[in-house]
Amino acid sequence: MENESTLRRLKTVEGHLRGVIRMVEEDAYCIDIIRQIQAVEAALNKVSAKILEDHLNSCVITAIQGDDQKERERVLKEITEVFEMSTKV
Amino acid sequence: MENESTLRRLKTVEGHLRGVIRMVEEDAYCIDIIRQIQAVEAALNKVSAKILEDHLNSCVITAIQGDDQKERERVLKEITEVFEMSTKV
Amino acid sequence: MENESTLRRLKTVEGHLRGVIRMVEEDAYCIDIIRQIQAVEAALNKVSAKILEDHLNSCVITAIQGDDQKERERVLKEITEVFEMSTKV
Amino acid sequence: MENESTLRRLKTVEGHLRGVIRMVEEDAYCIDIIRQIQAVEAALNKVSAKILEDHLNSCVITAIQGDDQKERERVLKEITEVFEMSTKV
Repeated sequence: MENESTLRRLKTVEGHLRGVIRMVEEDAYCIDIIRQIQAVEAALNKVSAKILEDHLNSCVITAIQGDDQKERERVLKEITEVFEMSTKV
Repeated sequence: MENESTLRRLKTVEGHLRGVIRMVEEDAYCIDIIRQIQAVEAALNKVSAKILEDHLNSCVITAIQGDDQKERERVLKEITEVFEMSTKV
Repeated sequence: MENESTLRRLKTVEGHLRGVIRMVEEDAYCIDIIRQIQAVEAALNKVSAKILEDHLNSCVITAIQGDDQKERERVLKEITEVFEMSTKV
Repeated sequence: MENESTLRRLKTVEGHLRGVIRMVEEDAYCIDIIRQIQAVEAALNKVSAKILEDHLNSCVITAIQGDDQKERERVLKEITEVFEMSTKV
């Protein structure tokens, strides 16, 4: 099940983020904390890409092969939106 | 024609970039130059999103509604790839 | 104490991330999950910027006003590094 | 002179961008165009990082070692601002 893999990755990221919180509590060096936050973000980017891949191979195919043009447009519009947003975060 | 709009936007970005080059030649303040480079990048992100939108509404629909499964997979894989890359630039 | 504010923000992000995990567990719509992950990343970016700001106003000032040139160079190099990395995540 | 290197890099990026424009004119494949735009952005990120590095090693050191506290605050604030912006483009 694809969810399992996404879930496992997100829980790993959660553990990583808790590690960052601990670093702040223990007064770690600022730059080291920033680097760990950037590592958390890189991991989240990978999870997003994986979710998008699964989405393209399921919902998007179904919508495009379906008869509902509105639905097709909606599904494609969303992809452009998350792509555009991804360049901003 | 959709190309026209993309072309016009890219030429505007080119003009913007030439302005940045002029700033460097005239020894403008570093931070102002960086800000202008960031503005150029934001404009490029918008062009990319527009190109992706057109691509989804043409090639991707054709591929997904077509009979060639390999082609379908290729087209969807590319979208995940540019999405993943977009989080890195 | 500056740490308190950073800590509070990071714990809020942790709560947000747990919400995302719950969404995956409950089989939420892929695009909604991606959007929430992007929101988590935007929040992390703000925390990083805040930590950098505090760092500049403490360690960096101390290093630059100090006599140790090696230390000064190290501290400035780190800032360029996290800046460069920030464009990649 | 540090400007020379920045100038040369920016002119290379300008050439790259003109190549992208040519691709659009010649109706190149959408995804290939997006990839080239992403390569242009990656190159711009490197130029920004180089400019920031030079700025830190000149203006920022001068400001922090100087007596004008307002100026010092202004210079440090700008760095946080371009860092924060860099996560958004």
